[in-house]
Amino acid sequence: MRILGVDPGLTRCGLGVIDTLPARKAKMVSVDVLRTPSTDSVDLRLGALAEAFDSWLDTYRPDVVAIERVFARNDVSTIMGTAQVSGLTMGLAARRGLPVAMHTPSEVKAAITGSGRADKKQVTNMVTRILELEAAPKPADAADALAIAICHSWRGALSGQSTPGANKDLNERKSAGRQGTGLTKAQEQWAKALRNAK
Amino acid sequence: MRILGVDPGLTRCGLGVIDTLPARKAKMVSVDVLRTPSTDSVDLRLGALAEAFDSWLDTYRPDVVAIERVFARNDVSTIMGTAQVSGLTMGLAARRGLPVAMHTPSEVKAAITGSGRADKKQVTNMVTRILELEAAPKPADAADALAIAICHSWRGALSGQSTPGANKDLNERKSAGRQGTGLTKAQEQWAKALRNAK
Repeated sequence: MRILGVDPGLTRCGLGVIDTLPARKAKMVSVDVLRTPSTDSVDLRLGALAEAFDSWLDTYRPDVVAIERVFARNDVSTIMGTAQVSGLTMGLAARRGLPVAMHTPSEVKAAITGSGRADKKQVTNMVTRILELEAAPKPADAADALAIAICHSWRGALSGQSTPGANKDLNERKSAGRQGTGLTKAQEQWAKALRNAK
Repeated sequence: MRILGVDPGLTRCGLGVIDTLPARKAKMVSVDVLRTPSTDSVDLRLGALAEAFDSWLDTYRPDVVAIERVFARNDVSTIMGTAQVSGLTMGLAARRGLPVAMHTPSEVKAAITGSGRADKKQVTNMVTRILELEAAPKPADAADALAIAICHSWRGALSGQSTPGANKDLNERKSAGRQGTGLTKAQEQWAKALRNAK
């Protein structure tokens, strides 16, 4: 399964692609941080990100897109750009029929390091080890995007998809309305309808 | 000049297209409210809105897109969906090289009714009169989208674009870094680069 992880942001948007391997392993396919200049207007920055994100979807053809969930913090102004980029990437992925999964920062940290309060350095170190990279991905947004993708592969495995051995009670989970990809029934129907329309 | 006004929202997204006429008049071309079910996941809703918005851009080919600016309010959770839809529509318009203008709710109300604190009914009544419609557009989101488009046409006129008579000191304003469409210099350059690339 190929997963595109997205750490959404207007100034720096991290994108990381991994292929899952057996036994909870994964291989890095690509990683980059898209940057847009803060001197440009927001619409230009979002237009540039839309072009770049669609081109990543075309190039890497992921099976699923995992995006860090934006949370309400103290200062609303700082999350506005992040919310706009997350909305843009969610919409662009979903319109292609791609499943989109959201993971909170603490879910990602907990999955990667074992602690939901790990710092950026711990996350980067674990991402480097898990993907057996020769050097740590930089900047932090690059490592975060890969961490989101890894987190999704493992949480997918937990719910019965990524490792073959875990498939034994997949039907049970299907009947509970969720499948191994982390898709809701409505998402499955939408994806199917889009596939049939094309 | 053809203007597409957008009142962004996840549950109801108002879209209104007007053509400007001489003497601060305007004609309605189309109006609708896109709805997505709150029972669907956010990515599906954004995917559906992306498809619908792009199809409006294809069908009506506006010269400019005017979007209501999202503001930080008391409750962050309620503006998250609006921020995501505004980011999506801004990105989809800008990637085509279309100029995108943002107007605050009070700018729109003041332009249409003369008061920045007008209620929805006053805005709807004025939109109906300005566009010489036989019936008031419903629901309020439809009237709001048209109001945003009208507001943009008038603010554009004020800065020297929409009415021929106002062009006499356009060069002065050009040299001040803003043109009549309400575009910044960077937006103009981006739009030009995109046009040339296609």
